[in-house]
Amino acid sequence: MNPTLKIIDLKALVSARDFNTIREETKNWPPVDLAELMEPLSAEMEAVIFRLLPRDQAAGVFSYLSEERQKELLKAMAREDVANIFNAMSPDDRTSILEELPATVIQQLLSLLSTEERAVASQLLGYAEDSVGRLMTPDFVRVRTEWTIAYALDHIRRYGKDSETMSSIYVIDESNKLVDDLRIRQLLLAQPTDLISDLMDFRFVALKATDNREKAVEEFKLSDLNALPVTDAEDTLIGIVTVDDILDVAEEEATEDIHKIGGSEALDEPYMKIGIPKMVQKRATWLVILFISEMLTATAMGQFEHEIAKAVVLSIFVPLVISSGGNSGSQASTLIIRAMALGEVTLKDWWRVMRREFLSGLSLGAILGVIGFVRISVWAKLFGSYGEHWFLLALTVGFALVGIVLWGSLSGSMLPFILRRAGLDPATSSAPFVATLVDVSGLIIYFSVAAAILKGTLL
Amino acid sequence: MNPTLKIIDLKALVSARDFNTIREETKNWPPVDLAELMEPLSAEMEAVIFRLLPRDQAAGVFSYLSEERQKELLKAMAREDVANIFNAMSPDDRTSILEELPATVIQQLLSLLSTEERAVASQLLGYAEDSVGRLMTPDFVRVRTEWTIAYALDHIRRYGKDSETMSSIYVIDESNKLVDDLRIRQLLLAQPTDLISDLMDFRFVALKATDNREKAVEEFKLSDLNALPVTDAEDTLIGIVTVDDILDVAEEEATEDIHKIGGSEALDEPYMKIGIPKMVQKRATWLVILFISEMLTATAMGQFEHEIAKAVVLSIFVPLVISSGGNSGSQASTLIIRAMALGEVTLKDWWRVMRREFLSGLSLGAILGVIGFVRISVWAKLFGSYGEHWFLLALTVGFALVGIVLWGSLSGSMLPFILRRAGLDPATSSAPFVATLVDVSGLIIYFSVAAAILKGTLL
Repeated sequence: MNPTLKIIDLKALVSARDFNTIREETKNWPPVDLAELMEPLSAEMEAVIFRLLPRDQAAGVFSYLSEERQKELLKAMAREDVANIFNAMSPDDRTSILEELPATVIQQLLSLLSTEERAVASQLLGYAEDSVGRLMTPDFVRVRTEWTIAYALDHIRRYGKDSETMSSIYVIDESNKLVDDLRIRQLLLAQPTDLISDLMDFRFVALKATDNREKAVEEFKLSDLNALPVTDAEDTLIGIVTVDDILDVAEEEATEDIHKIGGSEALDEPYMKIGIPKMVQKRATWLVILFISEMLTATAMGQFEHEIAKAVVLSIFVPLVISSGGNSGSQASTLIIRAMALGEVTLKDWWRVMRREFLSGLSLGAILGVIGFVRISVWAKLFGSYGEHWFLLALTVGFALVGIVLWGSLSGSMLPFILRRAGLDPATSSAPFVATLVDVSGLIIYFSVAAAILKGTLL
Repeated sequence: MNPTLKIIDLKALVSARDFNTIREETKNWPPVDLAELMEPLSAEMEAVIFRLLPRDQAAGVFSYLSEERQKELLKAMAREDVANIFNAMSPDDRTSILEELPATVIQQLLSLLSTEERAVASQLLGYAEDSVGRLMTPDFVRVRTEWTIAYALDHIRRYGKDSETMSSIYVIDESNKLVDDLRIRQLLLAQPTDLISDLMDFRFVALKATDNREKAVEEFKLSDLNALPVTDAEDTLIGIVTVDDILDVAEEEATEDIHKIGGSEALDEPYMKIGIPKMVQKRATWLVILFISEMLTATAMGQFEHEIAKAVVLSIFVPLVISSGGNSGSQASTLIIRAMALGEVTLKDWWRVMRREFLSGLSLGAILGVIGFVRISVWAKLFGSYGEHWFLLALTVGFALVGIVLWGSLSGSMLPFILRRAGLDPATSSAPFVATLVDVSGLIIYFSVAAAILKGTLL
């Protein structure tokens, strides 16, 4: 095999973005040869190829690079142009091609780069945008089981990076696997000659770098800790996540959900800062979708044009009746969306939720139905409104309300389940979205009830 | 003055809930005499009277009680029946009568009671429900300026309560005022013979017990600390708030807002746990308010009954046109509600928001207007729908949409400002609430545009 030839190939392959072939070609090379082969390449080119190597291969190659070359490589991974090469990949390709980086590389990468550089490099880590891996920081203190307390305290004094995270000390074994967490107070209270292993209880909570960040929020709420350790697939300690970052995450997630519930895309920028054209675009998308869906109401109303012409009085109650369905639907969907975000409701609860909403929807519908019935009757008696068949009209509106509110509650509560089941964000079932859905079906319910009750009189 | 007489008076006054007279009567007593006077009273009776004393008076009386009696008194303050006496007070009375307790009492109260007891006692602290005072814990370490590092570390070893909060150490002066915060690492790194004062920089962030808890969330997001100290009105350190409690607060606040945006009262309990009758009640309140407001649409439609009878085709587009106003309004209100909750938008920004929404609303209205115009024109050409005056009808719907979407955006964005200005929660301007408001005005806009454009043809 001629290395020179291969170098030219690699360059061409990177230019052609032919990542699969790069993986295929390099897979069986001994790491030491591959390290040599990559030597003459530019740091950027090297970073791209390095990132494509299988995990074990990458660990091997990295260990054969000179320390200086290692740093160059890691720095290159924080460059926008390098990151962009991988950003162009489809998410599916990314998952199948980019394996988790070796723990040693991740640790050094996190330590070497500034927070801003880390944001760029995090894309190369291959962790999904809303994963714990994107939140990791390297500011943790780790000690080894065989150390004495005195040695450990001395180590902490010297290498303890950031005071924030000093409350937890992480214990690793000889293969860098996380085996326990300790409190700084335990060390302060112990005899200096005791061993770290004397303090260990092997009970600890850790996150995986691939965990969803919502899982991190959950764990923090359960654990009451200020920081949680993060491990890779093989339980090697690679970073920590601190609770103040989680606070930001929780707020961001809530903001996204609220924006969606309000019926627009999440702005992803503060309201006062986002440019108006960009905001209009984010809002217009949903508004247009809703508008086009709502056009079905015109079609539905068109079907009943004949009935309306015969009994104009029916059209008077259309906004009242259909908006009640929309309101009950948006209540139900919002409650479920939030309960799902907080982990209170999961997919398997759909049947229990449906039963609850059946009862709630029926009660709420009955309440509104009675009010609607009374309103029409009182107006008819007081002002002589709505003609001679006011009683039948009141019955129509009353019964239609029961059906529509029940239907609104059921569809509003089930829509988040359907969306989540389909792998979509439940928050997409926004109040306006549900209202629009229920409007169309509400019209059909209303005019069907009218047809049944008013046949032979008004209709 | 005859003490025996006074005791009978006090008992009667407590029974009569005549708190003002108790304050009046005890105000000028020397603390030592008052302590003696309260000696024969039951602990509950004593707790009630004690809580009514002015701050200085209370501090004096407390210092004259025996240690055992102090404990009894503090324990009594965690009793439901004692707490309920004060719960019956109106919030206004509570603010005017209940002064902040003396710092020594607060500290002992927090330390003595369990978390559950503290929840009861917190009502007696007189801090508002959503204040920092309700979140305080006593698990902090304080050191004095004149101590040596060795002495301070020894003190921490002995009295450091909870490891969670060990990362910050608070420095107090001789009058117990908070003067600085230190990191445990600073102590570990310093020479044992150094003084605490050598490490001080007098720069620290503290919360007041009376601060709103949303302020605490803000401060934590800014400070990146795991705990913040809490002081009373006189800067005396009385407790700390930890970030994991703030995480819960942030999530709770977001949940409340989301429930309100969805158009119901905040449930204040997990969806799956709350009883159905209670949930129906919380949802029915708003649903009924919205329903009754929406009845105005029936009145508005009634006004246009004549026009509808002449041009039934107009009624066909009613749901489409008014729902667009509701959707744009709920987008706008939700964005502003969240921006307010995050502190991105404050009351004084109303004019800037109005200008942004004017531009956004006009653009969004124009987009929907064009789509609506095209839809009607295409249907007319393809299916011959909407009769001979389809062009004028399309114009009517198009122009009405511009006006209604603009109006929806403006009123949706301004409503949260109006609510906050009136001292109400901006989140009350829920998506369904805004939609209901805009529905009524939307009808008027629609039929007015119709009257202007269709006069002499359809109308």
